[in-house]
Amino acid sequence: MIVVIIANRSSFLRIIMDKLEYNNELVEKYSTLSRRVNEEYINIHPIQRGGLLTPEAYKALISFGDGYSLCDNCLKGRLDKIENPPVIDFLNDCAKYFNIDNIMPTAAARESKRLVIEVLSKREPKKRIVIVDSLSHYTTYLAIESNNLEVREVPNQGYPEFKLEPKDFEKTIQDVFKENGEYPLLVVLTHVDYKYGNYNDPKPIGEICKKYDIPFLLNAAYSGGVLPIDCNDLNIDFIACSSHKSMAASGPIGLVGFKEKYNNDIMVHSKIQGNLTSKSFPNKICTLMGCPPVYGAPLITLMASFPTIVRRTQKDQVKEESEKANYVLDKIKEIEGIDVLGKQPKVHPLTNIKTKCFEEIAQTHPRKGFFLREEFKNRGVIGLLPGISKEMKFSTYGLSWNQVKHFTNAFLEIAEKYHLI
Amino acid sequence: MIVVIIANRSSFLRIIMDKLEYNNELVEKYSTLSRRVNEEYINIHPIQRGGLLTPEAYKALISFGDGYSLCDNCLKGRLDKIENPPVIDFLNDCAKYFNIDNIMPTAAARESKRLVIEVLSKREPKKRIVIVDSLSHYTTYLAIESNNLEVREVPNQGYPEFKLEPKDFEKTIQDVFKENGEYPLLVVLTHVDYKYGNYNDPKPIGEICKKYDIPFLLNAAYSGGVLPIDCNDLNIDFIACSSHKSMAASGPIGLVGFKEKYNNDIMVHSKIQGNLTSKSFPNKICTLMGCPPVYGAPLITLMASFPTIVRRTQKDQVKEESEKANYVLDKIKEIEGIDVLGKQPKVHPLTNIKTKCFEEIAQTHPRKGFFLREEFKNRGVIGLLPGISKEMKFSTYGLSWNQVKHFTNAFLEIAEKYHLI
Repeated sequence: MIVVIIANRSSFLRIIMDKLEYNNELVEKYSTLSRRVNEEYINIHPIQRGGLLTPEAYKALISFGDGYSLCDNCLKGRLDKIENPPVIDFLNDCAKYFNIDNIMPTAAARESKRLVIEVLSKREPKKRIVIVDSLSHYTTYLAIESNNLEVREVPNQGYPEFKLEPKDFEKTIQDVFKENGEYPLLVVLTHVDYKYGNYNDPKPIGEICKKYDIPFLLNAAYSGGVLPIDCNDLNIDFIACSSHKSMAASGPIGLVGFKEKYNNDIMVHSKIQGNLTSKSFPNKICTLMGCPPVYGAPLITLMASFPTIVRRTQKDQVKEESEKANYVLDKIKEIEGIDVLGKQPKVHPLTNIKTKCFEEIAQTHPRKGFFLREEFKNRGVIGLLPGISKEMKFSTYGLSWNQVKHFTNAFLEIAEKYHLI
Repeated sequence: MIVVIIANRSSFLRIIMDKLEYNNELVEKYSTLSRRVNEEYINIHPIQRGGLLTPEAYKALISFGDGYSLCDNCLKGRLDKIENPPVIDFLNDCAKYFNIDNIMPTAAARESKRLVIEVLSKREPKKRIVIVDSLSHYTTYLAIESNNLEVREVPNQGYPEFKLEPKDFEKTIQDVFKENGEYPLLVVLTHVDYKYGNYNDPKPIGEICKKYDIPFLLNAAYSGGVLPIDCNDLNIDFIACSSHKSMAASGPIGLVGFKEKYNNDIMVHSKIQGNLTSKSFPNKICTLMGCPPVYGAPLITLMASFPTIVRRTQKDQVKEESEKANYVLDKIKEIEGIDVLGKQPKVHPLTNIKTKCFEEIAQTHPRKGFFLREEFKNRGVIGLLPGISKEMKFSTYGLSWNQVKHFTNAFLEIAEKYHLI
């Protein structure tokens, strides 16, 4: 009887733990993965626009595609000390570009935020509260949660602009002090938020942080590489960037910029020692697990795109990108039942609109909410969420004027087809 | 006077904080980054061989090079729930391949190790000691250090084989218990070590861990994707893989495999809530900061290479790869002053040799220790550390037999040139 049970159990295990075999099905499933979306369509998804590779980055990508490709000439066991390709130069140039003392790559902007909060909470273990604006990305909350800290939100002005007021930052700081007898550990401002694409000026918030001597982190995931940022001028202590989101890099790679004052907190050298071997690794950065995980295509594509990043964040180009977003809005505002959410005119081209008109059509359309995405796709535009017709997020960043006009016309055509204009 | 000081200070700041300008120098420095090492040379660097892309991965790389390319069809806000491309299928297939309940991508094997130790130390906060073998990679130590835990090393048998004995694992476990009244939090075994390329059989260590009820982590950074691994059979609770090192993926990407028993520890859902907005993110994995940072080229290239990985870890191919390494060793052993370090015959092709003969030549050679690298480079072989002539690490993994013979001949030629044979 026992034998039977074991046999059954073992056959049950074999079913769920069935070892994988090499066969044609496996080959077919994985060997032809392709994505031609950016050749055949205009992709208006906001998380995609700023991360499209430059031609230089494509070339570097192909050249450095293999695993650890960047580490051929690593002589010092540290990514940030590689001379060829010029990683040292790049990090220095990048620090100059953001006008901050130091820049280090990270896995992503979310990791930059997590790291900053981690090192600050070690520095000031009594301070348990992080202030964030109420437009923050979910990863800002997770960076706080994963450090076992508490969040306090700064309110926004609500519909339709969802504006942040500097005075509310100051009030929230004072409230935290009243409540806890301690100032917050950190204030985080979302430079351009993921939901409305609002440009939130760091200047007054930086001044408030300076007044209360509270470290200030700018979440520049959507802005670093798209808008110019001068950390020194803005009193920014830390900046978190997303290079796959906004710096034309093959992901994932982020950046953390920090003032020299925090250098020893971020760049913690390893102190552990083997009890038998006495092995130690004082050259390795413990907070980054030795080297940040960007030692191949991510960092090299970012480096290759860097001159373009510098150029595209000069005033004239930034102005032109804003004009594209505002051009679309000016044209589609005439459609009844479309309301623009967030501040206007647009500074950053991430845009959110309420599309009550399309929502109403979806109610009786045989394809329900899916109709909107399909109508756009039929006109060569992708990047809309499937099934959603009541709100629409898009970004015109980096589209040519012809593409901007094509997208606008697609909008107007769909509106016309459904008798909305 | 004050004005002068401020002016000076400001001009000093301008020097160190000089904003970066867009100019030709910048373009030239970063726009032509290239690396043709794998076209023009045989690269025998052990960290490079297992990460070379397959043709399918190259295709996927080009197709999915842009930033967040994998997330076009993310409908559930979670990387591991994407159906198109087939991420869900891949993670299931990969779990079957390693014969373990669950697999999740991470930034790198080092992050997998850090994560496993983090979640175990939350589960068993009293247990402060992690046992590692004395051939462990520095990132294993850093994973312990960054969790504020202590390391205990299992000795090896020293020169020339540096062999690990299962009985020493058991003794170290008992010593930890005697010393602390608690068993260790975890035992980590390096499946194939970075220094000697020793293949360390997990079977007896897994049995010891089972006997003492201690979780067992296999560091498979050099083996997962190169040698077959059956976690269920080996009593492995956690496996850490490096896909850019050994799974033909464009880096960085790692894997963490874990038994179902630990699912709730690894996959911790977010619980934080906004105090004003009530925003919460229960779908997001807090331990992974939402989604692990692999949402583009890294994961897609790993998926595209997966059928090749499955095929190349079948017995016949694994045997042939061992034969290549052993072929080189058999031929070069005849050179006087060359000693093979680590166990023989080789199972894994990562090889380390002591080259006393070359070290002696370096003493009087005008190029000092650099001569060796240059001699090999002149013969089309790269991947040697510059300036080092007393030891040499290489891997023949994935070389064709012609390349293996070419490499061997280069060795013999250099030995002949310097009258060593």
